[in-house]
Amino acid sequence: MPTDTEGHGDGESAPSGNSHIYDVIVVGAGAAGVGVSIALIHAGVENFLIVDRDTVGASFDSWPAETRFITPSFPSNSIGMLDLNSIAIGVSPAYSMKIEHPTGPEFAQHLRDIAEYFELPLQENTDVKTIEKKEGFFHLETNQGTLFANNVIWSAGEYQYPCTDVFTGSELCRHTATVPSYAELEGDDFLIIGGYESGVDAAYHLSNRNKKVRLFDLNAPWDAATSDPSVALSTYSFERMRNPKFEENTELYPETIVNSVTLTDGIYEVNTEDGQIFQSKVQPLLAAGF
Amino acid sequence: MPTDTEGHGDGESAPSGNSHIYDVIVVGAGAAGVGVSIALIHAGVENFLIVDRDTVGASFDSWPAETRFITPSFPSNSIGMLDLNSIAIGVSPAYSMKIEHPTGPEFAQHLRDIAEYFELPLQENTDVKTIEKKEGFFHLETNQGTLFANNVIWSAGEYQYPCTDVFTGSELCRHTATVPSYAELEGDDFLIIGGYESGVDAAYHLSNRNKKVRLFDLNAPWDAATSDPSVALSTYSFERMRNPKFEENTELYPETIVNSVTLTDGIYEVNTEDGQIFQSKVQPLLAAGF
Repeated sequence: MPTDTEGHGDGESAPSGNSHIYDVIVVGAGAAGVGVSIALIHAGVENFLIVDRDTVGASFDSWPAETRFITPSFPSNSIGMLDLNSIAIGVSPAYSMKIEHPTGPEFAQHLRDIAEYFELPLQENTDVKTIEKKEGFFHLETNQGTLFANNVIWSAGEYQYPCTDVFTGSELCRHTATVPSYAELEGDDFLIIGGYESGVDAAYHLSNRNKKVRLFDLNAPWDAATSDPSVALSTYSFERMRNPKFEENTELYPETIVNSVTLTDGIYEVNTEDGQIFQSKVQPLLAAGF
Repeated sequence: MPTDTEGHGDGESAPSGNSHIYDVIVVGAGAAGVGVSIALIHAGVENFLIVDRDTVGASFDSWPAETRFITPSFPSNSIGMLDLNSIAIGVSPAYSMKIEHPTGPEFAQHLRDIAEYFELPLQENTDVKTIEKKEGFFHLETNQGTLFANNVIWSAGEYQYPCTDVFTGSELCRHTATVPSYAELEGDDFLIIGGYESGVDAAYHLSNRNKKVRLFDLNAPWDAATSDPSVALSTYSFERMRNPKFEENTELYPETIVNSVTLTDGIYEVNTEDGQIFQSKVQPLLAAGF
């Protein structure tokens, strides 16, 4: 482990004599950043630093409380094949937490536990503003000063930064990534735009609370005849969609392209390309843009 | 596919001129037998037969109605890694049924669907009595006559034939493999011997129905610090054990070796090696001997 983890701090473009140049700086302490840091340790790299704008697993901590991993964790076999929620060899929520479908906060705790166990060289609350390669190494300007590295691994995810500029008026919607808990959402008549995992998740939790939901997607992910999880819905979501409350309260609108959302006199209006109009007093949810 | 699937039928020890000799006979049309039959097709073997004492998937059909696969089915990744419930390439309950933890009857239906899809050369209700190798090939005496094969793949499982002679008086217990449904079991105070997956499953369903359960195991599988699923409980079972009704109604007795079970005046008595005695009017369940 490096003993000098201090940034340069004075905004100079080159390190002074006592500045540290890391072999690797990992940007982002989520699943990818923590995972790749452990891989670095396994590979014998000692002189590295992992930085995060916030804290370890912050992205997962901001998930809606009810949302769970759609991929199951399970000690899948005795030859050591890992489940998809595993971020390092021998590491899985199935082992440490014995939870098959963790919530976001549960997985964040899992990442913090792992970071502690592996004693990762971590610098939190460090926001990387710019990265430049000069004189053969990288200069990372951060809110904590300048850091220097021979290699940078970018492992900052997208969850906290979904694209919300999807169609005219999409800024009138609330993005599901900003919902702390579906139990806290007021209203009874929800319009959800985006019918992949996030949209189905929102529809499931709301319909389970006996809210009426209309769910729009430009495709029909629930009908996709493929086993590729980046295209088809997960088994977990399909099971949720067969829940009687989902079937009762959620109406599906496949192959329905939303052109615009408007707000007039407290009424939200979703307008689709094929000329349909859907109204609600409740702010529509945007579950797209990832 | 062979066109002559008739057995010899006359009990002769050698095939007559028009008797068929299969390249392979697969004995058992459960998960293993159906899976290996598809592998034979993929390998280009055409002259084979799969026989079953009963019907395709009969073992799974006899599971207690509430019991589910503890291993999750999930389209796990885009490079085609299969879940443990998959029996052939590209085949999984996750794809065809979109069920993560199938029941036994659901999996039996899955097997029947697969057998039909692959047009497996199947002969049901064929009970193999003896197998002998004579004159360079195998003679299978069955209740449907004699079958001949150059190779035999034995893929008959153990579920329907658990060892019930585990300790003195174990025959007084009811084996969980013979329970059609936990909802149908009468009584309020259950003694379950065997605390691995089957025992936890029984305890879960009974405690969920507000029955009192005492669960005995000679080890402590719920404390095993291993990721090997043949030793440790599954994530699915651990989650069930954290269910409030399980915690309320089930009492665990780890490292408790049962010496004998007796029945006197309608009272069942479980006697343990360390001298404890447990009584109930309800027939104890045996969840061991697999």
